[in-house]
Amino acid sequence: MAQYNESTVTRAVLDSLANCKDARFKAIMQSFISHLHAFVKEVDLTESEWSDAVKFLMDTGKSSTPNRNEFILLSDTLGVSMLVVSLAQARKSETLKGATEATEATVEGPFYWQGAPDVPLGADVSTGMPGEPALYCGRVTDIEGRPLAGALLDVWSGDGDGRYDVQLSDPPVMKGRGRLRTDSEGRYYFWSIKPTAYPVPDDLTTGVMLRRMGRKNWRPGHLHVMVSADRHVPLTTHLFVANSPHLDSDAVFAVRNSLIVDFEKQPPGKALDGRVMEKPYHVANYDFRLAPAKTA
Amino acid sequence: MAQYNESTVTRAVLDSLANCKDARFKAIMQSFISHLHAFVKEVDLTESEWSDAVKFLMDTGKSSTPNRNEFILLSDTLGVSMLVVSLAQARKSETLKGATEATEATVEGPFYWQGAPDVPLGADVSTGMPGEPALYCGRVTDIEGRPLAGALLDVWSGDGDGRYDVQLSDPPVMKGRGRLRTDSEGRYYFWSIKPTAYPVPDDLTTGVMLRRMGRKNWRPGHLHVMVSADRHVPLTTHLFVANSPHLDSDAVFAVRNSLIVDFEKQPPGKALDGRVMEKPYHVANYDFRLAPAKTA
Repeated sequence: MAQYNESTVTRAVLDSLANCKDARFKAIMQSFISHLHAFVKEVDLTESEWSDAVKFLMDTGKSSTPNRNEFILLSDTLGVSMLVVSLAQARKSETLKGATEATEATVEGPFYWQGAPDVPLGADVSTGMPGEPALYCGRVTDIEGRPLAGALLDVWSGDGDGRYDVQLSDPPVMKGRGRLRTDSEGRYYFWSIKPTAYPVPDDLTTGVMLRRMGRKNWRPGHLHVMVSADRHVPLTTHLFVANSPHLDSDAVFAVRNSLIVDFEKQPPGKALDGRVMEKPYHVANYDFRLAPAKTA
Repeated sequence: MAQYNESTVTRAVLDSLANCKDARFKAIMQSFISHLHAFVKEVDLTESEWSDAVKFLMDTGKSSTPNRNEFILLSDTLGVSMLVVSLAQARKSETLKGATEATEATVEGPFYWQGAPDVPLGADVSTGMPGEPALYCGRVTDIEGRPLAGALLDVWSGDGDGRYDVQLSDPPVMKGRGRLRTDSEGRYYFWSIKPTAYPVPDDLTTGVMLRRMGRKNWRPGHLHVMVSADRHVPLTTHLFVANSPHLDSDAVFAVRNSLIVDFEKQPPGKALDGRVMEKPYHVANYDFRLAPAKTA
């Protein structure tokens, strides 16, 4: 006869995996169950605290929307997303020749919106968002520095007030997003605004947690970008604005020194791509290097 | 300048609690973050596994309803609920004189529905549910065996086919639930059905997990009961049907030997409470003992 208590239940749950056919899933669940139970025992979690945790998870799910995944924000602010990204990069570095030479990855964040418009090189994806204009340019290459023609960049950012389109109206209207391809020499260039530091949204459960933790919720200014090319490992990363506040206290722990980019201020006049600017603007120059995809 | 990677991010997240004013919450979050990160590192969680986990949590929240809390079922089937209940009992045993003499607690489960009807002693709460009739009777006492008059029992169970009211229709119609109070000698008695073994519902995310874990999802037959009385520690527990299948493999790890009750089969005739039964029925006799509430 079974008799479950605080001394026997963990073993019983682990043993319940005896017939699991999926070795990887079994290993994941065994580790998860062990750590989850160890946590509950370590803090001697009370029934009302457990009940609060169940309610917190439920509220996190119920309050999320298609454009606002609160579980991702929760994972981001607990450093789990960055840990997973970092482990993936370390794994690639071990298994792929030269992957250490590739541009570093960072978190995707909760605001990616699939289906941004395809735009030509030189387009302005800011579509009227407030903010100081910036020209983003550079090349996409392999790790040997050879240009990758037709590489796809999918870019998104908040505006010059630190707000994303999905936060501005309901239903949201897409702004500050675009997909473009490098030219035959691997070059890309497009216009948007210089992103500013902003607080991660604190109106839902993650905000409740951050306040109770006594934490700041600011992120340094950054542009999100996904870069992909045939036969190369896709990259999801940020470009961080040099000298932005909160580079050393990012609420989602996503900063990498190699991703910090100078936004050089330029006087009004003709920009590098020929666009005539009537007011000052910035130029952010950055080359992305993609690792070769694993071959069989 | 911050530089976050798999070696530095855990420390950074823990350090972000530096200004947390709530010492208990701080301790809980530090332990949780440490174990969560240790788990992710131990299994070298991939980005697609992380993404599956985020989707799983989201689906768990989105698919829950007011009468079906899938996060509770998830916690139950991972043994976390029983661990929390067991720790609470151990804690009470340390802090309350004689709490070890109280009836053992077990999990509440996902199907409690607040607001069951108040019924008199002797009422039949089965309200037409299929199943073999059973008379439940006994006393509620303190740990010295002194009767507690006016103690409240809030009972609920599935039917003789192992289904709860909340699973039978949408919106559900309340069945198999009732609240009653002990008489001046601490006695209670009411009719319902003899609960049968049943599978925990596997139509939502918990079912997906259990199948992938290669687990059975059956629970032995049981009646749920919450017992409370002035100046005593409230009790949430089950009465398990002796000889029910799955007593040794409860999908939620909730069985305690002290909660297993014989359902004695009786021939048709006049039952103990005077009710005349035209077909055979069962009698389940159980005394509940409540620990004294902590006094300042």
